[in-house]
Amino acid sequence: MSGNLAIVGIGPGDLKLVTPMAREAIEQAEIIVGYKPYIKLIESLLTKQEIEANGMTREVERAQIAVEHAFSGKKVAVISSGDAGIYAMGSLVYQMLQDKGWDKDHETKVTMVPGITAANACASLVGTPLGHDGCTISLSDLLTPWTLIEQRIDAAAQADFSITFYNPRSRRRVNHIERAQEILLCYRDPNTPVAIIDNAYRGDEQSIQISDLANFTDCEFAMTAAVIVGNSQSYLFDDKIITPRGYDNKYCFESGEVKQGQKRGKALNTKELIA
Amino acid sequence: MSGNLAIVGIGPGDLKLVTPMAREAIEQAEIIVGYKPYIKLIESLLTKQEIEANGMTREVERAQIAVEHAFSGKKVAVISSGDAGIYAMGSLVYQMLQDKGWDKDHETKVTMVPGITAANACASLVGTPLGHDGCTISLSDLLTPWTLIEQRIDAAAQADFSITFYNPRSRRRVNHIERAQEILLCYRDPNTPVAIIDNAYRGDEQSIQISDLANFTDCEFAMTAAVIVGNSQSYLFDDKIITPRGYDNKYCFESGEVKQGQKRGKALNTKELIA
Repeated sequence: MSGNLAIVGIGPGDLKLVTPMAREAIEQAEIIVGYKPYIKLIESLLTKQEIEANGMTREVERAQIAVEHAFSGKKVAVISSGDAGIYAMGSLVYQMLQDKGWDKDHETKVTMVPGITAANACASLVGTPLGHDGCTISLSDLLTPWTLIEQRIDAAAQADFSITFYNPRSRRRVNHIERAQEILLCYRDPNTPVAIIDNAYRGDEQSIQISDLANFTDCEFAMTAAVIVGNSQSYLFDDKIITPRGYDNKYCFESGEVKQGQKRGKALNTKELIA
Repeated sequence: MSGNLAIVGIGPGDLKLVTPMAREAIEQAEIIVGYKPYIKLIESLLTKQEIEANGMTREVERAQIAVEHAFSGKKVAVISSGDAGIYAMGSLVYQMLQDKGWDKDHETKVTMVPGITAANACASLVGTPLGHDGCTISLSDLLTPWTLIEQRIDAAAQADFSITFYNPRSRRRVNHIERAQEILLCYRDPNTPVAIIDNAYRGDEQSIQISDLANFTDCEFAMTAAVIVGNSQSYLFDDKIITPRGYDNKYCFESGEVKQGQKRGKALNTKELIA
């Protein structure tokens, strides 16, 4: 009997943000492999599945266990919070499959089930801070040289991307976000709005703080938070952060018609914009 | 009677990727506002809702209609494909609310429902091309000056981000992706894997092409595609693109133990990495 291996993103935590496709993969699995706190998030979906849960920095073992069970003919779901393809188990499971000689003609079928990643989940709680081009940067140096992370922060600041920082702090790693702030302040206004969202869509544990680039590192937050920094066009509206897509450059909001010098369906006329 | 306005991301198209929270917002709405093709994607969820659908470049009218109905006491859902906060109706609706004098004490309640954005949906069909830091860039210059878009491509290339291009081509806009390719080739290997995913999770219309940085612009694709370009570490494995998170730098895949010179839960030792 041939097994299968589903690599499943469960979204931020709320069962209302677990897609039907993810739920189906979990319900049909014989074995669920995951980080303990993530297993807990989907506990109420579990019936008779066998659970292989372990702790942080044990990702390689989880990938091994998942691949071995799938090769032995079991239906396995490896779960990650958010999207399993971003800072998650996805790449590692594929690398483990490769290490064990898997290819697409192997009897074990492998599928990815996408999920709502932290950037999108967190952004939705504070308006539309990611309304235009943006990037995600993890501040964890457990697997990535810090010099590369700094380069990326610098380039992202230059590009005027909205930035979502994953893993902004941990018990051992308290200064990285301060260094990120320092780099960003070389390029962006100290008043640039910043949102810190901790435990998004995890019930009472959810916390939301709105601050600015000059001051946000004074806030308390942990590894489970995401920090979203707006771009040069972002602004505070009420208690939300809005990053415009640019409709106001081209259209009159009252009439819905294009402004003078602009054409619907044509490139933005930047001469008129400056004038 | 006070209305409400839900800004809802429906994901890529497949109903199995519409979250229960999004489905609930759609089912409870009296009026659904959206771009015609997106309304079509969720048609089977509709019962007696009134539909306000229109075409491309009519986003400002859609936002107006949505806000007016909500202010008149109706339950309104504005739908976007993917996530409504990214290159979508979210920012525009908030700007329209602002224009019409809304604030958080207004009797009309406004909520965002996050969705699976195209980057995550498309990536899941081709492995884990977004396994590390990445960015999204729209190549549409309808609302954004092309000079700014070029700057962002350049910075993203320097940062060694995985890049997801939204709106890579349109009938009128055929050369932008070639220019993006030119810029990227100044920094990245011509063999860098590239995936082109068109109509992800839209049944028979879905198409997947795997190519490389030197050749991908020879492929046929349209505005509904996303183009994902790997980073310097991305590689082809079977028919998938893998962008490693970096576990292989630190851990032995056979034993699950850290390699010599590395410590579990501590920063990556880059000296050992180079040695």
